[in-house]
Amino acid sequence: MQKGENTKELIVKTSATLFNTRGYIGTSMSDIMDATNLKKGGIYNHFKNKDEIAFAAFEYSYGLVLHRFKTELASCANSEEKLRAVIEVFTSLLINPIVEGGCPIFNTAVDSVDVHESLHKKAKNAVNTLLKYVEIKVEEGKIENEFKEEINASDFALLLVSSMEGAMMVSRVNGNHAAVKNTAELMNTYITTQLLK
Amino acid sequence: MQKGENTKELIVKTSATLFNTRGYIGTSMSDIMDATNLKKGGIYNHFKNKDEIAFAAFEYSYGLVLHRFKTELASCANSEEKLRAVIEVFTSLLINPIVEGGCPIFNTAVDSVDVHESLHKKAKNAVNTLLKYVEIKVEEGKIENEFKEEINASDFALLLVSSMEGAMMVSRVNGNHAAVKNTAELMNTYITTQLLK
Repeated sequence: MQKGENTKELIVKTSATLFNTRGYIGTSMSDIMDATNLKKGGIYNHFKNKDEIAFAAFEYSYGLVLHRFKTELASCANSEEKLRAVIEVFTSLLINPIVEGGCPIFNTAVDSVDVHESLHKKAKNAVNTLLKYVEIKVEEGKIENEFKEEINASDFALLLVSSMEGAMMVSRVNGNHAAVKNTAELMNTYITTQLLK
Repeated sequence: MQKGENTKELIVKTSATLFNTRGYIGTSMSDIMDATNLKKGGIYNHFKNKDEIAFAAFEYSYGLVLHRFKTELASCANSEEKLRAVIEVFTSLLINPIVEGGCPIFNTAVDSVDVHESLHKKAKNAVNTLLKYVEIKVEEGKIENEFKEEINASDFALLLVSSMEGAMMVSRVNGNHAAVKNTAELMNTYITTQLLK
């Protein structure tokens, strides 16, 4: 039982990285066998097919992303700190990755959009949950009288998430952290100059 | 000869869409055969392998993106108009796509990063050319005395490109234009409030 659970976890963790770097179509069952050092039977004992592994890998990565957000934001004293922590978490997704390859939520959402309807649906919900999460932090800051009333919380959430995700792509493409660090700094300045009362 | 050229063009155009929506690994020679309605020989007459098609498809898409930028910016009277036109072109990559699936430069760059070194190198150069292109427009605006001297042109280029590319991903994932239109408006406001003298 213990060993079975460990094997299942190994498959999920290992394939999360494969899916996040090579995409859904780019990851074959034999890639998963190679990377886990398991035979076919060792994998099919736990999962019916590649789809089941892909879903489990996505849920695993998504859970870790949410957990990181919740952990980082738990120690924040106010909405300003929470928003800055959100930026810090995005930055960390590249610099101290949960799963190699950048943000697993966006990677899965973009990767699956034209090729896997049900995986895409899950990832799409996750993207919108993330946007809503940031939006709520802004709304809270308005209620707490920290942020200007005229700020459109949904617009700001979109700008923050889009620019950080876009910058993560640039950084990943260039193989360095400059774009993400730079954009994080710009968004922090934006909070100071545009949001704060 | 004429027919051969037409066939070659058909292969390049059709596979540009396949690569832009399904990615490099996700596009097989038989996908290209199906989509072009050509037999194996009809394709191998023009291209040695999938790599040659992928390179040609990328050059084709990249050329069209650059052409759209140059065309749109040609009629602009000043740097402010040019920057707004840049935003408009990014928006158009999703709403009136050159190749279905959003920005072919970023899609190729991200898609190839862990799986195809030479394709990645080409796309990486294209991403950085695009960033430099925007940066130069900002520098020109500073020289022309339209933009504030303290603006960091490279930072602004990064913010603009990252946020528009990130928003394109959100729009593509959600299957609507809201994120891109919204971010375009935000960036236009940013030009008005932060860049203009």
